[in-house]
Amino acid sequence: MKIAEAAAWLQTCEQAIILIHQSPDGDCIGSGYALAALLRLMGKHAVVRCSDPIPARYAFLLDDSDTVDESIAAVISVDVADRKLLGDLDAVYGDHVQLAIDHHMIHRTFAAACCLYPQAAATCEIVYAIAKELPVVMTEHIAACLYTGIATDTGCFQFDNVTPNTLRAAADLMEQFPDVRYAQINRAMFAVKSMGRLHLEQKLTNQMRSYFHGKCIVICITLAFLQTYEIDQAELDGLANFPLQVEGAEVGITLKEREPNVFKISMRSSDRVDVAAICKQFGGGGHIKAAGCLIEGTAEEVIQKLTDAVERSLAAQ
Amino acid sequence: MKIAEAAAWLQTCEQAIILIHQSPDGDCIGSGYALAALLRLMGKHAVVRCSDPIPARYAFLLDDSDTVDESIAAVISVDVADRKLLGDLDAVYGDHVQLAIDHHMIHRTFAAACCLYPQAAATCEIVYAIAKELPVVMTEHIAACLYTGIATDTGCFQFDNVTPNTLRAAADLMEQFPDVRYAQINRAMFAVKSMGRLHLEQKLTNQMRSYFHGKCIVICITLAFLQTYEIDQAELDGLANFPLQVEGAEVGITLKEREPNVFKISMRSSDRVDVAAICKQFGGGGHIKAAGCLIEGTAEEVIQKLTDAVERSLAAQ
Repeated sequence: MKIAEAAAWLQTCEQAIILIHQSPDGDCIGSGYALAALLRLMGKHAVVRCSDPIPARYAFLLDDSDTVDESIAAVISVDVADRKLLGDLDAVYGDHVQLAIDHHMIHRTFAAACCLYPQAAATCEIVYAIAKELPVVMTEHIAACLYTGIATDTGCFQFDNVTPNTLRAAADLMEQFPDVRYAQINRAMFAVKSMGRLHLEQKLTNQMRSYFHGKCIVICITLAFLQTYEIDQAELDGLANFPLQVEGAEVGITLKEREPNVFKISMRSSDRVDVAAICKQFGGGGHIKAAGCLIEGTAEEVIQKLTDAVERSLAAQ
Repeated sequence: MKIAEAAAWLQTCEQAIILIHQSPDGDCIGSGYALAALLRLMGKHAVVRCSDPIPARYAFLLDDSDTVDESIAAVISVDVADRKLLGDLDAVYGDHVQLAIDHHMIHRTFAAACCLYPQAAATCEIVYAIAKELPVVMTEHIAACLYTGIATDTGCFQFDNVTPNTLRAAADLMEQFPDVRYAQINRAMFAVKSMGRLHLEQKLTNQMRSYFHGKCIVICITLAFLQTYEIDQAELDGLANFPLQVEGAEVGITLKEREPNVFKISMRSSDRVDVAAICKQFGGGGHIKAAGCLIEGTAEEVIQKLTDAVERSLAAQ
């Protein structure tokens, strides 16, 4: 479904349940609440549903004032690449999603219709394009939703998914809604850390390991580490990017011990190393620059396996 | 001087010495080298001069292949708000700068002509506007220079100096020069830290002090601290923003001991507190959200004076 078709379809939809993915991020929250608000501006009813609680830093985007009739409401998913990512909501709604709006290259079709633009940096970029086709006057709240999604999915316009279109969407929003506090949104999303997180990062810096002349950096979060320092799970969000911040690092590996001797691995590549290929060797997958897998063994065994694979990959460059 | 006038003037200028400010940053380096390259594309000669060495992370922007005849070359400054910021070059060139291209609101006139646009987020935004008026076809190198300046002066489009025009300038560059590695530039400028810096930040997190329920965060870098941990001065760059990253912080104070019991103070405000007004009380100045001053005394005395002033300012909100 193209942008214009999605816009036409939405105008026929009187009530909507909008689903966003588990472990919700700025893009799915922003596109979900923007879409709900757009539908309401057209006199329709819409609610946003998520299997997980929405993190507090996104509270300024939420508007849960509406209700719908579950028996007749259309089901729409936004930013959901795979029905499994609906979490608990998959069992309830997964079989009858009518429209999926998404930007993930790896989208696995589950909805009756799909408005998929993999070249969009964020689903919010797609929702903004749809909004421009709708007979509504956008609001500051919608602009804040869309900006937040675009900014968070691009690391504040930092990553290589940014296109001229991404920057122009943000420019348009800023021009039309100059009173939205964009810089404050950016500060809350990118600059601010809790004291707990700062202290966690400090401990991780201490135990960081460097391999192959600093080209590969490893951090390991064991159950013992979490216990010793009484670390809240909420502080662990987005840590997978932590090792790559070291100057000269080409591969960052983050181990999180899920249960004794079972490690969830997140790998990141700054440039040329294909970490999806490495994770595939261990039954995982992902993108070239961001991938993951699950490996059993002691921390030392797991690190040995992974760094051996990284060494082969670096040698093949 | 307007953009078009500056463009016309540059076309009459056969040789140019381009001055950038001391402690050079991405914006003055980017606008300096972009302007030199633009002049060379018009068959002219241009060199960039700085009183300080250019930090290694900007090496990819440098092109010092040209020479000029000192006795006839025009002198142009870019991104220099005050002739004092020319450092050692002030004595040599400060009296005969013919054109100053700048975006600083607090620009103190020193040049014969001034192309000043305080609404521009970066001087590179102005140089880009001038470039569009010149009879040249821009190059990837110039695009990389201009993008780097725009990105660095806005914290990668994060700060409140970003306007729709800023984002559109970046969008245009990205569209016209898709092969520039924008994401790699961003990574080098924003994401990457040396191991030394990471360990410094770890130590600063340890000694961070919180006042007024976390609204004011203070870090203090004494001579003893630098000596004990053998910290390189180069690692201290940009630390003034460090305290403000703490969730809930409204004011960040960074003390650096310059000589025994003489502290260089950098203050940052996340939102409403006017730190320029506070620094003025101690003989300093700056902007509402970023200011500085010099105070004598022991670290404890200095911190007491500053936090007293912050307390009054917070109470007055």
